[in-house]
Amino acid sequence: MSGSDTGNQLHDNADPKPASDRTRLRRRPDRGRHDRATVEAILDEALVGYVAWVAEGQPYATPTSVWRQGDRLYWHGSAASRMIRGADAQPVCVTVAHVDGLVMARSGTNHSVNYRSAMVFGTAHRVTDPVEAAAALEAFFEHLYPGRWPQLRPMTAKELKATAVMWVDLAEASAKVRADVNHDDEGDETWPAWGGVIPVRTILGEPEPDPFTPDGMPAPVVRLEG
Amino acid sequence: MSGSDTGNQLHDNADPKPASDRTRLRRRPDRGRHDRATVEAILDEALVGYVAWVAEGQPYATPTSVWRQGDRLYWHGSAASRMIRGADAQPVCVTVAHVDGLVMARSGTNHSVNYRSAMVFGTAHRVTDPVEAAAALEAFFEHLYPGRWPQLRPMTAKELKATAVMWVDLAEASAKVRADVNHDDEGDETWPAWGGVIPVRTILGEPEPDPFTPDGMPAPVVRLEG
Repeated sequence: MSGSDTGNQLHDNADPKPASDRTRLRRRPDRGRHDRATVEAILDEALVGYVAWVAEGQPYATPTSVWRQGDRLYWHGSAASRMIRGADAQPVCVTVAHVDGLVMARSGTNHSVNYRSAMVFGTAHRVTDPVEAAAALEAFFEHLYPGRWPQLRPMTAKELKATAVMWVDLAEASAKVRADVNHDDEGDETWPAWGGVIPVRTILGEPEPDPFTPDGMPAPVVRLEG
Repeated sequence: MSGSDTGNQLHDNADPKPASDRTRLRRRPDRGRHDRATVEAILDEALVGYVAWVAEGQPYATPTSVWRQGDRLYWHGSAASRMIRGADAQPVCVTVAHVDGLVMARSGTNHSVNYRSAMVFGTAHRVTDPVEAAAALEAFFEHLYPGRWPQLRPMTAKELKATAVMWVDLAEASAKVRADVNHDDEGDETWPAWGGVIPVRTILGEPEPDPFTPDGMPAPVVRLEG
């Protein structure tokens, strides 16, 4: 739980290069990963990110699909959404975390979680060019559902207009990773409790086609990893 | 993605009873769930929640283990953690979201995600009484690992002191749920693309005991559902 293993708090704060004070890793700097490849791999595996934004002093953590293109992390929403309007041109923090395992020690304190998390700090921007917005949405599909976009009925201008696409630069991004066994305090190892790791995984179930899907048509490919 | 299905933005904002303006559901109020039982079930299934807090105008979304006891949602961390110090006595939003399925339509706009999300708004409080903090940590274990707490080496006073336990009241909590099939625009159904839902699930892998665990000792029970 806490103490030597700092609890299951997965990402207090980290930093890419020490690009800024807010991304400097305070707790457990040994778990920080400053290389971009690690950050990108964590972001690219995400089905959902959490956009933290502030309105009149009240913070919000809004869950939404995120995807990366080059140096930017994108998300989208209804153009009428409160989050889109509230975050636009404002400071945000977008967080992604994957839980990989439950780490069981012989003391509460030494319990932990194996995880990979990434935090991106920056100013949220809205894509204003409809061509660029359409390209970003296509990239979202191509990332998560490779090959699917060209099979779909194309987006209409009205649909594009109703869809807000947002992004934040990855310059202030950081990752934090725990991928380890359990560590007990000296002398605790022989305490008569189970010690080890229980893996946690996200999996896809059997696809459930609708009645309009022709028999034998293969289900779309879903890329759950980066 | 967006438009009629509002994108994959899972929880713009919701409300418990309309307890407050910030919890009123703006987008897709049909997906709102105002009953406490739904909120509790979503929270109780969470391995991780995202605590949104603000420091000097910058929002943070910090992933951390959360657990519910009665009318409170708890989390914990190192007493030295920046998040604990930054959130204490401040407005927070704690969000939990479960992705249950990928909803595939024949247009990008009508793609969606099946999900269950909960947001809790309130002031973060730190538990100052060590007995109360220890009881909260025990409740955390009892929830996630039923029966395990009494098997562990008891927490020391030093460990307890290093562990900060935080909570927020559930009075301003709301849930949002999409549990549905794909919905195509009229005329899109016959577009030659696969339509349907691909379920997403979180599962536990085969437990990996450490060398100190006696042969045949059963792995701890993990309660992934509320």
